[in-house]
Parts: sequence; C-alpha cells; structure tokens
Amino acid sequence: MGLQQLVEAARAGDRRATARLVTIVENQYEGAAELARLVKGGDATVVGVTGSPGVGKSTLVSALIGAWREQGLRVGVLAVDPSSPFTGGAILGDRVRMADHALDDGVYIRSIATRGHLGGLAATTGAAVRLLEGLGFDVVIVETVGVGQAEVEIASLADTTLLLLAPGMGDGIQAVKAGVVEIADVYVVNKADRPGADGTVRDLKAMMSLVRREPGEWRQPVCTTIASESKGIDDLVAAIGKHRDWLAGEDRLADQRRRRAAAEIRARVDAALRQRYRVTDALAEAVAKGETDVASAARRVLDDTA
Amino acid sequence: MGLQQLVEAARAGDRRATARLVTIVENQYEGAAELARLVKGGDATVVGVTGSPGVGKSTLVSALIGAWREQGLRVGVLAVDPSSPFTGGAILGDRVRMADHALDDGVYIRSIATRGHLGGLAATTGAAVRLLEGLGFDVVIVETVGVGQAEVEIASLADTTLLLLAPGMGDGIQAVKAGVVEIADVYVVNKADRPGADGTVRDLKAMMSLVRREPGEWRQPVCTTIASESKGIDDLVAAIGKHRDWLAGEDRLADQRRRRAAAEIRARVDAALRQRYRVTDALAEAVAKGETDVASAARRVLDDTA
Repeated sequence: MGLQQLVEAARAGDRRATARLVTIVENQYEGAAELARLVKGGDATVVGVTGSPGVGKSTLVSALIGAWREQGLRVGVLAVDPSSPFTGGAILGDRVRMADHALDDGVYIRSIATRGHLGGLAATTGAAVRLLEGLGFDVVIVETVGVGQAEVEIASLADTTLLLLAPGMGDGIQAVKAGVVEIADVYVVNKADRPGADGTVRDLKAMMSLVRREPGEWRQPVCTTIASESKGIDDLVAAIGKHRDWLAGEDRLADQRRRRAAAEIRARVDAALRQRYRVTDALAEAVAKGETDVASAARRVLDDTA
Repeated sequence: MGLQQLVEAARAGDRRATARLVTIVENQYEGAAELARLVKGGDATVVGVTGSPGVGKSTLVSALIGAWREQGLRVGVLAVDPSSPFTGGAILGDRVRMADHALDDGVYIRSIATRGHLGGLAATTGAAVRLLEGLGFDVVIVETVGVGQAEVEIASLADTTLLLLAPGMGDGIQAVKAGVVEIADVYVVNKADRPGADGTVRDLKAMMSLVRREPGEWRQPVCTTIASESKGIDDLVAAIGKHRDWLAGEDRLADQRRRRAAAEIRARVDAALRQRYRVTDALAEAVAKGETDVASAARRVLDDTA
C-alpha cells in the first residue's frame, strides 16, 4: 500500500494502517515529510496526562477514553515510556489495563519508546500527535510515566495538561517540588476516596490562591476523581473542554501550537549539532582532575568545532 | 577577601566562605576557572539520592548526615530544586527538616536552583560537587526532588546513587516505569514500618533476579530504613561504603568520574551551540500547520547556521 492508501485506510478506522503510519513518523522513515503534508490539518483536543508513578494515570486515561467514546469521538493515546532494560520500553501492565478498549476501532493506543530518537521525546511525539490529529482523531492523549523534565517537555506538547495527584503520596508542596505545578492546566486529585483527599485538594487550592493572575488568565480547576470507578470523569471532561474553549479565544491555541513546533525544531537541531563535535577522554580527564574547568573545556571543544 | 583566603577559610569550616565559593561556581562568575584549579583534588564519597516526591528523601539525608557526623566526617549537601514560581527555587520545608544540622560547622547544605543555568543541571551541580570535594568534604550528597530525566542526569553525577521507594506508593514496576531503576546502586525502602514494605522489598528483589550480571559486577542491595527514627541508617551507610570500595577497584571510580566530566562538557557545549541559531515564527508556524515537517525545518535552520 502506498502512503495515500494507508492514510485513507487509517482515516476509515484501520488501526494497522494507523500503526504503520505512526511507525514511519516515529522512526523518521523515508516518506515522513510527504506524510506530514498528506495529513495536515485536523482539529484534535490534545490532552497531556502527567503525575508521579502510582497516582493512577493509566486508569484515568482508560476512564477518559470511555467518556469520549460515549460522545462518539475518536481517541488516540500516545503512552510515552522511557526505554527500560527490563521491558524494552513498553509497560505491559498499563496496556493491559487499557484492554477495555482493545476491540474498539475508534480508539488507537500506542507506546512510544523515548530512547535513541534523534531529537528526543519532543521531536517524535509531536510529529505523532500531528499525525493522529491529521488522521481525524478528535482527542489525542499524551500520557507520560513520571514527573520530571522529560515529562514537562512532553506535557508542553499538549493543549491541555492534567497533573494527577493522589492522597497520601505527599501533599501539594510535593507537586511544587516536582516542578510540574506550573505546567498544569487542570489538577486532578485521583483516588479521591482515600484518606487525605480533602487535604490534598485544600493544599492545592491554597497554593493556587498564592498565584496572582491577570483578569482573563486561566485559573486551574481542581477536579476529584475515582478513576477505577469512573467517578468524577464527566466533570473532568467538562473542565478539559472549558480549557480548550479558553485556549481557542484570542489566538491562544495557535500561539501555543507554534511555540510547540518551535520547540520540536529546536530539539532536532540540537540533536544534529550534538553529532558535530566530540569530547575526548583526555579533555574529560583534565576536568575530572581539576586541571581545567568545564567552561574552559567547552570553549576548547567549540573552537575545534567551528 | 581574595579567592585564596576564601578557600582557606572554607577549608577551616567557615560556611559563609563556602557559600560564597559555591555562588561563584554556580553562576560561573569571574574566577570560576581559577577556583577550580585552586581546589583540585580531594577524595569525597559522592552520594546521589533520588526517588518520587513523598518517599522521605530529605529525612533520610538528615539521618545520613547524622551517621557520618558521628564518624567525624565533613558532609556537604547539594539539594537540587527546580526553580518554582512559588518558591523561587528553594523549598523551605526540607531545609527546615535539616535544621538539626544548622549549627554544625561540619555540615554545609545548599539549595541549587536549576533553571536558567548555562548547560543545565549537570554543568552547575558537577562543578559544585568538585568544589566541595576540593574543600575537604568527605561526603557530598546530591539530593534531587523527583524522578525523571533531569534526576537521572543528576544522579549520574554521583559515585553511588540511592533510589528511595516507600511502601504504598506503587510497587517495583513503578520504579521501572520511572526509568530510574537502572541508575540505582543501592535501593532503599524507606518508611519500612508501613504496611506493604515487605512486598516492596520482595518486588525489588524479584526484579533484580531478572537481570543477568557478569561475575564481578555490582549487585544492588536492598536496604530498609525508617529515616524519621534513624533506623537502618548504619546498614545503609555500610552499603554505600561497600559500593564505594567496589568502585575504587579496577579504575571504575576514575572511569566514572571521567564520563561524568565528559557529560558536563557536552551539556555546556550544547548550551553554547543552542545560542547560535534561531527558529523563526514563520518556520514554526509552517510546521504547526503541516506545511513542512520537523526534519525539513531543522535542516533549513542548520543550513542557515553553518
């Protein structure tokens, strides 16, 4: 099948065709540039889901898929896993939890390994998001596996980023510490039937109240869910829709997507530049022994490169 | 005071002098290169402490400081916090918990903000580690605030990296998901008096048994602690010492430190290269709209740069 036929099949809901196209984008195979042009456009809501391990991200994603499917929307999920020596990148447990949707042609779920890709997470995942959007998916969920710089990077690919917390896993200050509070558009306190849930919600709201905002700026809502019982999901879907509506106003969505694309280009340029120089063992050893400092060593590498 | 006097004062235990020197290194002020040469050498055990928010990293670090102080060792702590809009980088809570050691001249604790530094975490923190080592600290602890790529990067600055887990925060598989299992030299199950601790230890050991190791390779021990009561700390200190002894054999420590220095140089070179090109709004918009793909856009930027 040629690219054009694969695209048509994928648009009609053929998940194997979708998988082949994502593979082309993910590995930057021949045809990736043509494919980008073939599928340009679309109008998906792109939702990032982040939070510490154990807060229930996959269960929540599964519940969200169910809610959007009831509205007749097509949902794509990109689960971004760091490649692991134990699993080779895909975490079976989560994929199993998403098995509810395994036979539904309106749902496409894909694990994206993050190691060894030129330009890192951003380049690969951003292109995959645009592909799914161009193929007619109404919602694209980007799920990450932890909280950290990589996750912040991924979350920034989304239009709307959810930060999941769970009671008893440290309170609001822990989210501040993880440095991810600032990137969240909607807070979700999951496992809300557990002891301490009220305290977590209270801490989050108290923290919010410390941030001064201009009129018209987005104020992050705090949603509570019990994802395993699909409780609170409708309110969360409504909050996501509200944020999307807010974004759509005053060109915010277009601005944000342009910034996102710029970040992807930069990631790729950085990766290419990184292949143009070499740090010798001798130079590294000189720094390790204190014979020179890092800045001087870097200057020497740059002089040799230019 | 000149650099030389500051170094002498810091070596004698003057913490304000130490603070001024760390500031020079952290901000790459004039004199940073000279300072690196002035303090080269030293023989510190560099210990990285990582783990999800809420597992008790700061409490454990405080307990470890106590144990090493009883042995008469000087201990430096670099607490790496992502800069936060709420706190400006330093998390008061933790520093307060470490207040036990506030009046002890043998202990120096410093929060390192991670945003906006040329070359990122690695460049700043690595230089600060070498500075403290050169000033005669026997142990340098690098504590990170979460688990993620940034934390992995930081942890790789340490000779010995501890991965903290706590029962009830997700089991072993969660650590695999966070992608940090592979960088740990010693596992620590903290809050070992909580329900589920035995299960967490069992999961970790089961996971370890899946990894094939050559004879002579390091086998990560699993320590259990109740840091808030200083329980299990002596065993943990012994495990850290054992890993250090293993590293010292067959040039492993020197190799590791050279690799670490190479990574720091690369981080700095990358940052410098990043300032040599610009991604225009028009190009970013073309990618966002699917008129071109990321790879083609990156090529165009590279052509303009070279």
